[in-house]
Amino acid sequence: MSDITLKQARAAVDAAMEKSQELGVKMNITVVDAGANLKAFARMDDAWLGSIDISTKKARTARFFNMNTGEIGKLSQPGGALYNIEHSNGGLITFPGGVPIKNRSGETIGENDHIVAATGAGAVS
Amino acid sequence: MSDITLKQARAAVDAAMEKSQELGVKMNITVVDAGANLKAFARMDDAWLGSIDISTKKARTARFFNMNTGEIGKLSQPGGALYNIEHSNGGLITFPGGVPIKNRSGETIGENDHIVAATGAGAVS
Amino acid sequence: MSDITLKQARAAVDAAMEKSQELGVKMNITVVDAGANLKAFARMDDAWLGSIDISTKKARTARFFNMNTGEIGKLSQPGGALYNIEHSNGGLITFPGGVPIKNRSGETIGENDHIVAATGAGAVS
Amino acid sequence: MSDITLKQARAAVDAAMEKSQELGVKMNITVVDAGANLKAFARMDDAWLGSIDISTKKARTARFFNMNTGEIGKLSQPGGALYNIEHSNGGLITFPGGVPIKNRSGETIGENDHIVAATGAGAVS
Repeated sequence: MSDITLKQARAAVDAAMEKSQELGVKMNITVVDAGANLKAFARMDDAWLGSIDISTKKARTARFFNMNTGEIGKLSQPGGALYNIEHSNGGLITFPGGVPIKNRSGETIGENDHIVAATGAGAVS
Repeated sequence: MSDITLKQARAAVDAAMEKSQELGVKMNITVVDAGANLKAFARMDDAWLGSIDISTKKARTARFFNMNTGEIGKLSQPGGALYNIEHSNGGLITFPGGVPIKNRSGETIGENDHIVAATGAGAVS
Repeated sequence: MSDITLKQARAAVDAAMEKSQELGVKMNITVVDAGANLKAFARMDDAWLGSIDISTKKARTARFFNMNTGEIGKLSQPGGALYNIEHSNGGLITFPGGVPIKNRSGETIGENDHIVAATGAGAVS
Repeated sequence: MSDITLKQARAAVDAAMEKSQELGVKMNITVVDAGANLKAFARMDDAWLGSIDISTKKARTARFFNMNTGEIGKLSQPGGALYNIEHSNGGLITFPGGVPIKNRSGETIGENDHIVAATGAGAVS
């Protein structure tokens, strides 16, 4: 298992922040490593306090299942195959914004959180 | 109260892993005892990190109520008789995959978790 | 309430990392804002996984009481005035390493964690 | 970062159980991976229920800080440099029994818990 470096994690955070500024939004940005442990975090000035935890949970959720968080959200609705999966792992977030970060060989090495996460994730490979 | 032995628990884990390999899936497998306490656990290589806790919660949920977790999920939907029961007991998982393990006399002696759980449970009796 | 900016928080993180490299140690570095909420975080490569939470709790502890965490630790010993205060606030850390960050007018605007924290804190004023 | 395989984890569990039987003790045995996530667990028949959580926390503690848990316990006593560190990470266990598992190149790839842990850990390299 290859793991994300701090240099890669910060590149992802910076790319996500740049994208946020371009879009005129204020974001909390989290990157976790291959073991789903916190690696880097930044809260932009005036970003929501309530999104600190959401950002962290999203990044962990994406790594826990190696998929975009929104994909899990489709299955966790009432009547769905994974209804209320959010009660596991100390709380999951299953709406979009958490995306896997893969290295050049396609191996998942961490996770980034956000509507701007794809930009962040793309900055690593 | 008759209780599951480690030998039985490991036989259930092994049968579930064999079935998983046959199906080409990577699983987390948990067996709890009659007291709903962890007895045996194995995470197959490359299985989801997020399923460690789900597997454990599923096994506990099945033992807590002596029924397949999916049966509880039918009642925990919006408007249902057990709506949001998942908030109890430190978090329940109510989608399918947790099944009771019974001994030859039909007594519940533990629980096994998973899509391949029936195979594991069958290996005990 | 004057609050720390992300620019200031990152300057504190960077200064703390530089000091860590100089000392040949691997650190987890947390900065929280005036509201004791996470602002910036970085885990240096090969730093302890267990210090993610310790770093965060130390920074929060320092801001909760506006003093160095080690000062609280002197009072939380057996028989002390704040014995076992660590049970509050979801867990406090009271050994040294968490220090207040003050702005030029001496107002506390955030907290930084670590043996290298003073360096980081100094980078803000 | 190289990670422990289920085959290695089970070899550690089996060696620890064999040693336990030799010593006439009943043990809970936990192996976590390089990310401090649960990999394999077995509770011997008649082992303490209260040691399920202790075993898990010990294994995680050893991996969190890459050292035997007893070493941390020496520093977490009243007046010590890490007093009450046990309040971090959702609860640490700092008395002896958790030991790092290293591969042939000396890299930490997981952790094993117990008085018989050294035997288990030795079975992996």
